[in-house]
Amino acid sequence: MSLLESISGPGDLKRLDAAQLSQLAEEIREFLVQAVSKTGGHLGPNLGAVELTIALHRVFDSPHDKFLFDTGHQAYVHKLLTGRHDFDRLRRRGGLSGYPSRAESEHDIIENSHASTALSYADGFAKAFQLRGEDDRAVVAVVGDGALTGGMCWEALNNIAAGADRPVIIVVNDNGRSYAPTIGGLASHLADLRVTQGYENALSLIKKTVPRAPVLGGITYEALHGIKKGIKDVLQPQAMFEDLGIKYVGPIDGHDEDAVERALRRARGFGRPVIVHCITTKGRGYAPAENDDEDCMHGGGAFDPATGEFVRKKGGPAWTSIFGEEMVAIGRERGDVVGITAAMLHPVGLAPFAEAFPDRIFDVGIAEQHAVTSATGLAMGGLHPVVAVYATFLNRAFDQVLMDTALHGQAVTFALDRSGVTGDDGPSHNGMWDMSILQLVPGMRVAVPRDGARLRELLRECVAVSDGPTAIRYPKGPAADDIEAIDTVGTMDVLARHDGSNGARVLLVAVGALGTAVMEAAELIAAQGIGVTVVDPRWVKPLDPALAGLAREHSLVAVAEDNGRAGAVGDAVARLLRDAEVDAPIRTFGIPQEFLDHAARGEILVDIGLTPQALARDITEHTARITSTEAHAPAEASDRETSDRD
Amino acid sequence: MSLLESISGPGDLKRLDAAQLSQLAEEIREFLVQAVSKTGGHLGPNLGAVELTIALHRVFDSPHDKFLFDTGHQAYVHKLLTGRHDFDRLRRRGGLSGYPSRAESEHDIIENSHASTALSYADGFAKAFQLRGEDDRAVVAVVGDGALTGGMCWEALNNIAAGADRPVIIVVNDNGRSYAPTIGGLASHLADLRVTQGYENALSLIKKTVPRAPVLGGITYEALHGIKKGIKDVLQPQAMFEDLGIKYVGPIDGHDEDAVERALRRARGFGRPVIVHCITTKGRGYAPAENDDEDCMHGGGAFDPATGEFVRKKGGPAWTSIFGEEMVAIGRERGDVVGITAAMLHPVGLAPFAEAFPDRIFDVGIAEQHAVTSATGLAMGGLHPVVAVYATFLNRAFDQVLMDTALHGQAVTFALDRSGVTGDDGPSHNGMWDMSILQLVPGMRVAVPRDGARLRELLRECVAVSDGPTAIRYPKGPAADDIEAIDTVGTMDVLARHDGSNGARVLLVAVGALGTAVMEAAELIAAQGIGVTVVDPRWVKPLDPALAGLAREHSLVAVAEDNGRAGAVGDAVARLLRDAEVDAPIRTFGIPQEFLDHAARGEILVDIGLTPQALARDITEHTARITSTEAHAPAEASDRETSDRD
Repeated sequence: MSLLESISGPGDLKRLDAAQLSQLAEEIREFLVQAVSKTGGHLGPNLGAVELTIALHRVFDSPHDKFLFDTGHQAYVHKLLTGRHDFDRLRRRGGLSGYPSRAESEHDIIENSHASTALSYADGFAKAFQLRGEDDRAVVAVVGDGALTGGMCWEALNNIAAGADRPVIIVVNDNGRSYAPTIGGLASHLADLRVTQGYENALSLIKKTVPRAPVLGGITYEALHGIKKGIKDVLQPQAMFEDLGIKYVGPIDGHDEDAVERALRRARGFGRPVIVHCITTKGRGYAPAENDDEDCMHGGGAFDPATGEFVRKKGGPAWTSIFGEEMVAIGRERGDVVGITAAMLHPVGLAPFAEAFPDRIFDVGIAEQHAVTSATGLAMGGLHPVVAVYATFLNRAFDQVLMDTALHGQAVTFALDRSGVTGDDGPSHNGMWDMSILQLVPGMRVAVPRDGARLRELLRECVAVSDGPTAIRYPKGPAADDIEAIDTVGTMDVLARHDGSNGARVLLVAVGALGTAVMEAAELIAAQGIGVTVVDPRWVKPLDPALAGLAREHSLVAVAEDNGRAGAVGDAVARLLRDAEVDAPIRTFGIPQEFLDHAARGEILVDIGLTPQALARDITEHTARITSTEAHAPAEASDRETSDRD
Repeated sequence: MSLLESISGPGDLKRLDAAQLSQLAEEIREFLVQAVSKTGGHLGPNLGAVELTIALHRVFDSPHDKFLFDTGHQAYVHKLLTGRHDFDRLRRRGGLSGYPSRAESEHDIIENSHASTALSYADGFAKAFQLRGEDDRAVVAVVGDGALTGGMCWEALNNIAAGADRPVIIVVNDNGRSYAPTIGGLASHLADLRVTQGYENALSLIKKTVPRAPVLGGITYEALHGIKKGIKDVLQPQAMFEDLGIKYVGPIDGHDEDAVERALRRARGFGRPVIVHCITTKGRGYAPAENDDEDCMHGGGAFDPATGEFVRKKGGPAWTSIFGEEMVAIGRERGDVVGITAAMLHPVGLAPFAEAFPDRIFDVGIAEQHAVTSATGLAMGGLHPVVAVYATFLNRAFDQVLMDTALHGQAVTFALDRSGVTGDDGPSHNGMWDMSILQLVPGMRVAVPRDGARLRELLRECVAVSDGPTAIRYPKGPAADDIEAIDTVGTMDVLARHDGSNGARVLLVAVGALGTAVMEAAELIAAQGIGVTVVDPRWVKPLDPALAGLAREHSLVAVAEDNGRAGAVGDAVARLLRDAEVDAPIRTFGIPQEFLDHAARGEILVDIGLTPQALARDITEHTARITSTEAHAPAEASDRETSDRD
């Protein structure tokens, strides 16, 4: 039995000696490389967190003490140490989640993998434990240097600092990278901290600290008093953190388990907010990851463990690559087009653009809010920015899209990758919110390409808009085969027309990448003798008013979209028809407004009825009910009412 | 003619000597007190920014140089100096906006008054000017110390620092207050900076600065290199900013116009990012404001200029006060209920709670994201937090409500004040988004009280929920008179039933505070012989499925709500009916999905048809069309289709 196999919980860890801990770390790395090579997953971040996680579980007592992992993709080691050894179906249905999961273990607290949140949870836990008198419970947040570029961390640090009597231990897992190397002033400061260790500042200076003493219902005076820092702290290079009133310990070699343990014990002893700065290497101990310049094998699919070579995926060019290519082509023609990424240059496909136009790409860190508002400033300054983000991460910047870009009518283009069901990354990564929040934004135009050709075409239409914001959204994976239009109505493409034999006619509104499935569904529906028109609106905001006229010619309107059903295109079509006084029956198909457990995209689409077969069955049934029975309840009701009274 | 009257633009300002500038400042203060005493508006912040704004316009050349005012309520002086002297209809229809407005002046850039955005715009402008070779244009962001507690500022500072060759001048207007005194670690640090001026750090220490040199397509290497700070900067107390690579000038007496001018000229000369730290007094020069402990007369209605006493408003107790009272009552019964505010303790009505339970209130700064996620941590730790914010500011934390609170199923209650049309603060303050974004959040329950009694009742229902998030939203101003239910259907209140004489029956769904208007509309509709049922769903998410049964009994369903129409309750009702296969005609009434110019709430309601008269007229017309003609287009179409083929 390996040492790792003998660890069924944190308790087992505490019995091991230094040599055994070293062996355990080695076994964990070997296990991770083998396991992730088969299933895919986040390798680099976890290889960098082995000793750190061991030390955490030896010093603290989870779940009595709380471990809060920011961007939970660094929690594989934590899973192993808390008794979860079966990685065979990692990120697959029925297998372990790729992130912490409360359903899996009482040791898991935060499931959300949007970055920069852990310190805020920590502040909340610390406040709750203080109020409830549970002073013996430690709150430990583990956050990467990349995540510290997110504004939430600043908000949280500012609050944690104000609670000098509430201990929060912030472990900065600093590998100098988020996906790509972390950039910005903070990164530079962290770099400084690393090289100044060991310097002694020989200075004596009396520093007056006259508190400004705001008294707010007795609440903040003591807090503010408490955080006045000592003289010597002010004059050390870790000043940035200490200026905020947070004790600093470090930098520590994050791969020296004993050193990390000692730092954590010291941190715990302070009884006040403290930052433990650990320097780690992403991909540590696995050469192909350590040497991967792009992202240290941050995450990805299955690979050959001997070489680190990813197994090539089947399929044509990915949506992301087509976007990236077209951006380069557009960039050649338009010197005013600039690209913006929030620490994900490669994943969003902007790397070729960055290479071609190095002065026209801006990586702002994990900072979607700033991405959007600085883009608005760029637009005001005469450029046309394209902000490329994962669809789910745009949620972070909803207010900025609305109140900065749109209120000011600025021509910023948002390229939303990984929209729709992404599946294996779980509920926080599905891009099922963007089409709903963007429907709320006045002046926003939203394009949804059904295939690669339309992605190129609509991206060009987006950047051609000069009087307001535009968005274009497309999913993960290989682009759908091109579907050529057979006709156009206004700005919409008609993709198919099937004559029916039984009088019923259905208008199928196919949104974006669901076009392929809807086309198949149309064939199945038409085979039942039902007339079918398939239309792709191309632009789902604003919708072409001609859609109301089309609807008038059909007995049923069905909308299919790869987004949460609430407030998305289905609702917008229904509103358009209501406002045009077209009271045609409508049925809308999309993602149920729920958090979806991780599983393969295909499995989820079957579950939620977004397959050709399910759509065809449902729409055929609705059509039958609507056209063969007197299903118009209100008319029926009012008729009955009238006759009752007669 | 006064000096102020002679200023028609910044050019006029540059000719004045020191004595004249001093006189001008005095005239401006006198003007502001008189003008705002009549119209209401933001007094305190503007009295504090007089010399600062004069200096800005003397040193820089707007609009060639760009002034970016964060939270634009500090821009009155800027308006005066750019030729806008008619304050008679400030914040009223046709009068000056209470914020910068591009429609008013080429000198105004940012209209949005959500805080903490200006530095991000500045980063964008600076990047655009650099790329376009417009190196002679200065970018000046004016930001309060309060706004610096918002995470966006951190994201922006981190990026501005990374662009060492892109000059951005950040003027920190530090009055130690946002609404209330600014709190947190940052506030303390700023306080330190104030008192350490003049100290010389006698230290010589060679600081190695080995760049970590991430090379990202050639982009960041130089940037990172450029921001390495000098030795002496590291060891001064302004280290926090300088650690990020931003030059620091200050602190400056913000009421010494000459000192501010000199600092600004020096800052401009650096040609790199620089912070100019100005200490100001909110309400400066007007004793009632300076001495106002609550918020230095931050903003409000008309007042007596001699005393600063606000003119009492007519009407019963405000929604806000009722919320505040009930929170205290709940707090007495429930030791686990805690309050959270984002720097707006008084405006959101939590001051009485704070006084009663000083250890159970948390002011997190202007940091809505942290407010929500730390509340989630508090809930995980066993407490029940009530996060009270203006409805429009919840947009800042949409991702956190969704991915932190809701995904983790935590029982946090969101109290959304100033929902619906607020009017005089303009487009960024209307609370017309919350019912749409909350409809997207799985597991969220949303209550909308129609009157004060329901506010108390529903707030208690909210905090009684223990398995997920709840929200309750209510408007500005005095609460509506209580409307007692005549019946209930499920969780819904039936408010009125009018028998009709002509067979048509309308179901009016009245959302929240529109209940009063809908009740009046119902009378008017009933007077036409139409049967009317008025139902208040009380909870608009989830909607009671019994609503579908009610709808089935009516010829038309009409929903009226004080929220943007897209994705809100009207759409949700329509979806509920579709899913229940009730194809009743529906009409939905709400705020058009547009940015509304500032005007009185009443004027706007008339414009958008949310008055009893307009609702009655529209609904009567729709009812007539639907019941008297064969308006069921789809059935008609399919019938025609059938007969054509027969």
